[in-house]
Amino acid sequence: MPELFTVLPPADALKVLFDHLPAHVRTETLLTAEALDRVLAEPLVAPSSLPAFPRSTMDGYAVRAADTFGATESLPAYLAVVGQVLMGRASGLTVGSAQAAIVYTGGMLPPGADAVVMSERTQKLDASNIEVLRAVAPGENVINVGEDVKEGESLLRPGHILRPQDIGGLMALGITRIEVAVRPRVAIVSTGDEVVPPEATPGPGQVRDVNTYTVAGLVARVGGVPLSLGIVRDDFDALLSAVRAGLDAADALVISAGSSVSTRDLTAEVVNRLGQPGVLVHGVSVKPGKPTILGVCNGKPPYSAGGKPVIGLPGNPVSAMVVAGLFLVPVLWKMQGVANPPDCRRVTAKLTHNIASVPGREDYVQVKLLEREGQLFADPVFGKSNLIYTLVKADGMVRVPLDSNGLHEDERVEVQLF
Amino acid sequence: MPELFTVLPPADALKVLFDHLPAHVRTETLLTAEALDRVLAEPLVAPSSLPAFPRSTMDGYAVRAADTFGATESLPAYLAVVGQVLMGRASGLTVGSAQAAIVYTGGMLPPGADAVVMSERTQKLDASNIEVLRAVAPGENVINVGEDVKEGESLLRPGHILRPQDIGGLMALGITRIEVAVRPRVAIVSTGDEVVPPEATPGPGQVRDVNTYTVAGLVARVGGVPLSLGIVRDDFDALLSAVRAGLDAADALVISAGSSVSTRDLTAEVVNRLGQPGVLVHGVSVKPGKPTILGVCNGKPPYSAGGKPVIGLPGNPVSAMVVAGLFLVPVLWKMQGVANPPDCRRVTAKLTHNIASVPGREDYVQVKLLEREGQLFADPVFGKSNLIYTLVKADGMVRVPLDSNGLHEDERVEVQLF
Repeated sequence: MPELFTVLPPADALKVLFDHLPAHVRTETLLTAEALDRVLAEPLVAPSSLPAFPRSTMDGYAVRAADTFGATESLPAYLAVVGQVLMGRASGLTVGSAQAAIVYTGGMLPPGADAVVMSERTQKLDASNIEVLRAVAPGENVINVGEDVKEGESLLRPGHILRPQDIGGLMALGITRIEVAVRPRVAIVSTGDEVVPPEATPGPGQVRDVNTYTVAGLVARVGGVPLSLGIVRDDFDALLSAVRAGLDAADALVISAGSSVSTRDLTAEVVNRLGQPGVLVHGVSVKPGKPTILGVCNGKPPYSAGGKPVIGLPGNPVSAMVVAGLFLVPVLWKMQGVANPPDCRRVTAKLTHNIASVPGREDYVQVKLLEREGQLFADPVFGKSNLIYTLVKADGMVRVPLDSNGLHEDERVEVQLF
Repeated sequence: MPELFTVLPPADALKVLFDHLPAHVRTETLLTAEALDRVLAEPLVAPSSLPAFPRSTMDGYAVRAADTFGATESLPAYLAVVGQVLMGRASGLTVGSAQAAIVYTGGMLPPGADAVVMSERTQKLDASNIEVLRAVAPGENVINVGEDVKEGESLLRPGHILRPQDIGGLMALGITRIEVAVRPRVAIVSTGDEVVPPEATPGPGQVRDVNTYTVAGLVARVGGVPLSLGIVRDDFDALLSAVRAGLDAADALVISAGSSVSTRDLTAEVVNRLGQPGVLVHGVSVKPGKPTILGVCNGKPPYSAGGKPVIGLPGNPVSAMVVAGLFLVPVLWKMQGVANPPDCRRVTAKLTHNIASVPGREDYVQVKLLEREGQLFADPVFGKSNLIYTLVKADGMVRVPLDSNGLHEDERVEVQLF
């Protein structure tokens, strides 16, 4: 049972995989209102200016600012009120010299006016005359045409993940349909003669499927659509026909590959039969996760321009999750055209224990976050990498770099949260 | 147009609202496989131990550890191979003294064996005999029964937001259905005679609806279900009948309340007509967002045990989003029973400019994050609070505390990312 594969560092392995993926992002048109958290696939520019008319930011009086210059409480300016600007209507009003019009927050400034005096800075003399108790500058309490965004201005670029305010901002400009990246469909196969579905009662030597569900969750969290193909037994023909069907139906394939050397070899053989170039990387210098398989296989047309990524995950659940995070997640972002994937779920914490490692290998260690006297600590959850509950008990992972022989107690480390 | 309402600090305002919400969390049963990102509503304990049988973590030979004690390359231990443990099958094998059985990673340890020797540490003598070149301790390369999780052990508590590995861990134990919090339905009404749907071409003085979409996005991101009721004109009867229908159909109500004092008063009156206790807070010492309305109104049975939260947002989009983040988001978490909402999307950055504020008021200022020479900077996006594109251009917000008169350039601040 020899391990003959050559092992690449994770960053190099990912680069090999990326180099074989299509540069093209598949897109679809969507209602903007339904595009939350989707990836924009076109550059958007403002079709018109926002606001389209000068708007008051206060409840008060639209005036000519010059009429108020020098006004004080003891020496107010006197203005004649010519009417009221109704919300959402074209107003027939014009504000002339020594005149004012009642206007509400968000209301349109009538022609002639160039500023708004807050109602608190005025006093009513009678039904149609006011005193202005303080001067306003031209433009004061007014949002001018295009002050929010100007016609032709760049709004958002391709690769941007749409947030609530982005949707709102596009709606404000009447951009109700947009081009977004298609959500990549990811076929997931679990292999192993010992694996049974979670609903089943495992017999002697049998265990329930875990990886189908952790991988599906990761896929959904980065915008993909998981397609579970169920459990396939460790048999060349059975596995080949299952994954071939999966790859035809999906944009990417994940094989939870079994842990023993023989099932890993089986997976590699099957991947090589799915089309060129096949297996690109067999073995990555990461712990847990060494027996990772990365490949690219051509699917059916219309996807023949580039290959579809195929990832063979180690069978044990912790390795599978680490490897899916290292390779599947960035691949899915790339397929959606996201240049800089969101990477904000990180916190800095102080290690509570030494973590030993070996240079030449990246280690990922689960940690639980503890808060003591306002300080954040990362407490390693040690455990054999086969134990799914080390992941359940943990809040995140700490990475021990490739060239390090470990991390020290009290060292400040970055924790990647789950 | 007087502003007569009393103003509460944000934390006090939220407490008043929380004190009037039902303590009870509504729950439903869900397939565990479909419960990603949902909130667990029951305590879960392990119905059985995991693993249920001792498993090998290596490809190798199951042995009695004592038989290998003292074994070295020059003085190996000799063992007779009695057979092979097939994956996922009950094995008839028993490992006796001076015996070994072939076992694969994840395979069941046969009775009699208490350790596994890696195949690399053995040498084949002939078809049925091996040399063991290094001693193993009892339990070495074995996961014992219950080593992952023990029968009866607490797995997850109510209020936990389910992650991919949590789903996987529950599946491993055959927990395929769980009790989760019902996703709160949030009715959203936009008011304003000037507001038109995004598909419409606004006439003079008209603007497109923004808040329905930003609020819907925020609701969806914290597990709620947005129900858009569309745009209602500034008319007491029209608004009352729309929001009454909305509150009947939903678990919470958001009214994007218009910006002028008159429409704010209208909203408050309408909320008071929806049932006791009605408006609880009218005005919060936050900028932007002062004219916030917080209330609780009783809905129809079966929700009569407690009230439904009603939030009147200021009409302008930035205020609306800040206020929804300050009040609607924590309310939705609370309704789902989440004690400690996820609060990890924060980064620390250095301010590029002074931010002025006034003591007695919390300020929220949009910032863009910039990276220069490996350091993160928070660059304030200044702009009138009516400008939706200040939110689109920003990566997050900085909070100026209640008792502060501002933040200084070069100060390290916490940025809450969008």
